[in-house]
Amino acid sequence: MTEDAASAPSAPADRIVTAAMLVIGDEILSGRTKDKNIGFVADRLTEIGIDLREVRIVPDDEAMIVEAVRALSARFDHVFTSGGIGPTHDDITADAIAVAFGVGIDHDPRAVEILKARLAGRAEINEARLRMARIPFGATLIETDNGMPGFTIGNVHVMAGVPAVLQSMMTVVCRTLEGGRRMLSETIDAHLGEGLIATPLGALQKAHPATVIGSYPYERDGRYATNVVVRARDAAILAAAVADVEAMLAEVRSRYP
Amino acid sequence: MTEDAASAPSAPADRIVTAAMLVIGDEILSGRTKDKNIGFVADRLTEIGIDLREVRIVPDDEAMIVEAVRALSARFDHVFTSGGIGPTHDDITADAIAVAFGVGIDHDPRAVEILKARLAGRAEINEARLRMARIPFGATLIETDNGMPGFTIGNVHVMAGVPAVLQSMMTVVCRTLEGGRRMLSETIDAHLGEGLIATPLGALQKAHPATVIGSYPYERDGRYATNVVVRARDAAILAAAVADVEAMLAEVRSRYP
Repeated sequence: MTEDAASAPSAPADRIVTAAMLVIGDEILSGRTKDKNIGFVADRLTEIGIDLREVRIVPDDEAMIVEAVRALSARFDHVFTSGGIGPTHDDITADAIAVAFGVGIDHDPRAVEILKARLAGRAEINEARLRMARIPFGATLIETDNGMPGFTIGNVHVMAGVPAVLQSMMTVVCRTLEGGRRMLSETIDAHLGEGLIATPLGALQKAHPATVIGSYPYERDGRYATNVVVRARDAAILAAAVADVEAMLAEVRSRYP
Repeated sequence: MTEDAASAPSAPADRIVTAAMLVIGDEILSGRTKDKNIGFVADRLTEIGIDLREVRIVPDDEAMIVEAVRALSARFDHVFTSGGIGPTHDDITADAIAVAFGVGIDHDPRAVEILKARLAGRAEINEARLRMARIPFGATLIETDNGMPGFTIGNVHVMAGVPAVLQSMMTVVCRTLEGGRRMLSETIDAHLGEGLIATPLGALQKAHPATVIGSYPYERDGRYATNVVVRARDAAILAAAVADVEAMLAEVRSRYP
């Protein structure tokens, strides 16, 4: 079954668009909170034809955030961050992003209006809540129906860490992005352990250099089995490799029934 | 409630021991597989008094693995890797680690014996399975009851990506490590949104510089609430900060009943 998302936006023919993700937060590194955002961002980027090439998780530490943002934004087309944009003293992402880009940061009038509308009649605007309206100069807002906005500056998209809010922001950001040529993929259950298919599979990878063939072992009923995943950007190239993998698997199974 | 693990090994009085994790695998970055190992490694390291300071996820790409291993092993006391040590052509972690350390790699006689014992009477030793016995020169094996070994070279601990196997290897490795002074932590449910407590909480962070005070919002029954986590390596310092946080929260709650 071809697994690409039929609903993704149309993509330029040949360009490969790359991305990195930067997860920010002490709580992920201490194990206290288990990340739920990496898998979501990975799925959405794959759907729209952007290759997620690296993920980093760093603590609430300005120097480490700045270093990671600079390294990743220089290297990839897009950087998606999660975490650290709330109202408390340990929410330092917006300030660190401003440092990374060498720009100022202050209460953004657009974000202050959103805050006012959100709190109207329910709670007071105080210094802490205003902190959430601090946006680096030159950024555009990522506005959702779900609370305060994130922002995009340069090629860096800054989003919340709470999964429901991140998901809203990611949906908004993805609408603005142009994907590259989507990676198509097909998964074949080998019904065989990796040890029996690894050598012929390696030969098939060499024979189909425009594909990426991955092998993912799993255990079922105490036996090792394998999912073979073939990926390519061209449907005909993908189909040819898949046909060869299936023929190889049928041959091996006939010898190890 | 103090959350540190009472069963962790005794630790030197003052040293802080740091670690990074490197997750290797195209399937995590494509979203096909959702990582289950980062949270496990984070929890185990926190238990034994090692601070996980950074995580990176990279694809099955030798240059990217080598670069990450070199950067992380130079910067932190330990590096834990997961993924890419199986028998197929896309399992390139062992070779990349050898390149990163500038050492050779070949079939390791100890690992070959383990492979023979494991396969005895059940399956043949073939070229692909022997690939799992390739170990960089100078490495020590991480032997478990659960299949082929991982290995440690320098300060890098190389483990499988399949969660059950990684967990066995991590348990074996942790027995050999000396933790630092454990980070103690206490979680207080504020029963208040972050916007009401952020300013006094920031002041308490300044007043207790030997602690790290984190604020983690969550939604319950449509209302935002907050867990405040106070961390410190000294029990008395932790207790003093916790008492001040609780007094502050009681005061705010009395104004917003």
